[in-house]
Amino acid sequence: MVAGSDSSFSSATRPLVAMDKLVSLCAARGFIFASSEIYGGINGFWDYGPLGVELKNNLKALWWQRMVRERPDVVGIDTSIVAHPRTWEASGHVDNFSDPMVDCRACKKRFRADQLDDAGKCSSREGSSEHDLTEAKNFNLMLETQIGASADATQSAYLRPETCQSLFTGFKRVRESSRQKIPFGIAQVGKAFRNEITPRNFIFRSREFEQAEMEFFCHPSERDEWFEYWRAQRLQFHRDIGLNEGRIRNRPHESDELAHYANAAVDVDYEFPFGWQEIEGVHDRGDWDLSQHTKFSGKELAMTDEATKEKYTPMVIETSMGVDRTCLALLCDALDEETLEGGDTRTVMRFAPKVAPVKVAVLPLSKKLSESAHKIDAELRKRWNVFYDESGNIGRRYRRQDEVGTPYCVTVDFETEDDKKVTVRERDTMDQERVPLDGLDAYLHERLEAGS
Amino acid sequence: MVAGSDSSFSSATRPLVAMDKLVSLCAARGFIFASSEIYGGINGFWDYGPLGVELKNNLKALWWQRMVRERPDVVGIDTSIVAHPRTWEASGHVDNFSDPMVDCRACKKRFRADQLDDAGKCSSREGSSEHDLTEAKNFNLMLETQIGASADATQSAYLRPETCQSLFTGFKRVRESSRQKIPFGIAQVGKAFRNEITPRNFIFRSREFEQAEMEFFCHPSERDEWFEYWRAQRLQFHRDIGLNEGRIRNRPHESDELAHYANAAVDVDYEFPFGWQEIEGVHDRGDWDLSQHTKFSGKELAMTDEATKEKYTPMVIETSMGVDRTCLALLCDALDEETLEGGDTRTVMRFAPKVAPVKVAVLPLSKKLSESAHKIDAELRKRWNVFYDESGNIGRRYRRQDEVGTPYCVTVDFETEDDKKVTVRERDTMDQERVPLDGLDAYLHERLEAGS
Repeated sequence: MVAGSDSSFSSATRPLVAMDKLVSLCAARGFIFASSEIYGGINGFWDYGPLGVELKNNLKALWWQRMVRERPDVVGIDTSIVAHPRTWEASGHVDNFSDPMVDCRACKKRFRADQLDDAGKCSSREGSSEHDLTEAKNFNLMLETQIGASADATQSAYLRPETCQSLFTGFKRVRESSRQKIPFGIAQVGKAFRNEITPRNFIFRSREFEQAEMEFFCHPSERDEWFEYWRAQRLQFHRDIGLNEGRIRNRPHESDELAHYANAAVDVDYEFPFGWQEIEGVHDRGDWDLSQHTKFSGKELAMTDEATKEKYTPMVIETSMGVDRTCLALLCDALDEETLEGGDTRTVMRFAPKVAPVKVAVLPLSKKLSESAHKIDAELRKRWNVFYDESGNIGRRYRRQDEVGTPYCVTVDFETEDDKKVTVRERDTMDQERVPLDGLDAYLHERLEAGS
Repeated sequence: MVAGSDSSFSSATRPLVAMDKLVSLCAARGFIFASSEIYGGINGFWDYGPLGVELKNNLKALWWQRMVRERPDVVGIDTSIVAHPRTWEASGHVDNFSDPMVDCRACKKRFRADQLDDAGKCSSREGSSEHDLTEAKNFNLMLETQIGASADATQSAYLRPETCQSLFTGFKRVRESSRQKIPFGIAQVGKAFRNEITPRNFIFRSREFEQAEMEFFCHPSERDEWFEYWRAQRLQFHRDIGLNEGRIRNRPHESDELAHYANAAVDVDYEFPFGWQEIEGVHDRGDWDLSQHTKFSGKELAMTDEATKEKYTPMVIETSMGVDRTCLALLCDALDEETLEGGDTRTVMRFAPKVAPVKVAVLPLSKKLSESAHKIDAELRKRWNVFYDESGNIGRRYRRQDEVGTPYCVTVDFETEDDKKVTVRERDTMDQERVPLDGLDAYLHERLEAGS
């Protein structure tokens, strides 16, 4: 068995490490940290650092490969964050995307009217938990801005609160220009914004976030089988990126919790340290969206069945993955604190190689070896993301790579010049193997690309 | 010589096709079209369709590969679009990122005070070009929004007007967490927003756009050589993606046109149908940005030289590529209307294979062959973006692939079953070659990956 194959990298169901440890490791190692940190941060906004951006890009590339590249029946698009405001009237967001809020006249805090038991004590009224509350008022969660420069043509616009609406408004143009026939899908990865009342749980609930969504348009007679197909596909995806089977589940929505546009919905939940939470949703949206946009735009979006000449509005099955949430699941799932013989603790991120931000670290044993180490580094960089580190003792350098989840360390030592070999250390087993330089690429390829 | 090597794909200096033809081809074929098109569009916002997103993703991936992956001295990040508002005070955008504007009381139009000769006639005053103008007033180009939900904590914030500032505010965190030493760079690809008075020239000047920026931090004594190094690197990049040598140039800024933060600047210009225009800038920003953020944040961003113990603020060389502008240059450069023998005109996009949205089209001669064609399609999709098309006559299908710049068409015919061969047609020469199925992958690989 190949030591580095995916199966040997898949994690057993370990106890999860506490969130505060993960958050501080993420900042210290440059995965994810507060936006505008030197100005004290800005609540609900996060920056991905050098390791975080590679993790997120790997996830997005795997999604695009699976959902777009490998399929003749799905095409990708990339639309603007600011869309025509009528879009959000048609979708119902202008009228309905709001929470009922109440203010406390004493402590000036604002609470969701339906979650008042979360509100805690009123800080202005010592010893009392009684707030002095206003009437509930709807608070729209969309971020608004003004565009246009003419004195008479400035208009309000919104930052999209979800990426999917432009997949509906673009349906006709995309179908016609890409010569797709029903059934087919349109997919997109991009940012969306919501003015969340209480951003929380690190990047789980933030005000700026990324979604990877796909809308699949099908004939009404086939909607149930496509819903089931995509439910199974999307659950499998989360297994394939390495999430522990015991921490992911499908959770169907009860009929009383379905959104107004949905006929059926099933979540992919992950068991975070803060509980089971949705990282993806698969929704049967019926003909709600195309019908609404037909009504608001006056443009016909219905189709004619080529065989029966029957006119119909396609039904839509949506798959909607939270990119940041899935990154957080990958981080939570990977982080392990292992007790070694002798009692030492080793912190190790057990990422599957396909999502690991850095695939290989190149570590010369001494700065005197940097010339040949740089050559190896340059060669490996053509194919993988590589980290080069030449300072500090080798044991500490290994541990730093364990902490960021690098599957393989390549150590260049004083014998490398003579025997043309390097030492390759595997992250999970810590086993070391002497590998000939001219076989290094193949050695790593076999282990890193297995199952991807 | 390999028929599909980059050199044979590089375009001679042809006359450019007019912009209106490019714009309508982009919409018809699904490269790029107006955002929210069914609602009449929204001025200054564009959507990338199935072909456009692949073109743009190819460009961004090539940039990331060259600027981040291949270099031990540059790391990537991905930061939020909404940053702390102090960022834009420090950068000077709150006070200075504005144009002096005047309104016409009669026709209600707004004009830049320094460009009044662009304003044309006043539409409310027939036969007269005289406007009834107000005093000039500064009009900030940043898009503003309100975030935060507490009654007492709602704050104004801006959508970033450029992606680079978070590379400065994150400088210390990124340097420490990624163990980088001066000189090193931080790179990012992402969206930015400007409320342009007059969006124009298709995606050249829009209100939502994408930048690929890198800030390189170096010791003051090395700034001149790094400026020259990056100038040459970035010019070479635009050659490498296939832009015609005769249509790109470096243009150094005169001292009187330098931005307030810049000590030296050189543009990479492309000769569009609407003239020579900047697609990338390389700037010596000196210590302006780190000094400003030190002043506004109170956080020390200066360094101590390890050898001399001297304290210094690193100097910054910036490379800033407009992603949409470079996509537009690629489209303009590729589009050709070729007169064939017999007088027919063939529209062909002569993209270099590495940027072409679709690498291979799979075309069964008849729907009866779709089973074996789908098998070939599925195999090729593992590696490349593939388009599958089984309807219409084969000549028209070839022309459609020419129009979107697909380098190779693979035709499956009735002999394929017997001789296990397919016909491969090359876009530029229209030459056809019979290729064994078991050598198809290697045949295409040799031609598509040459020079990349």
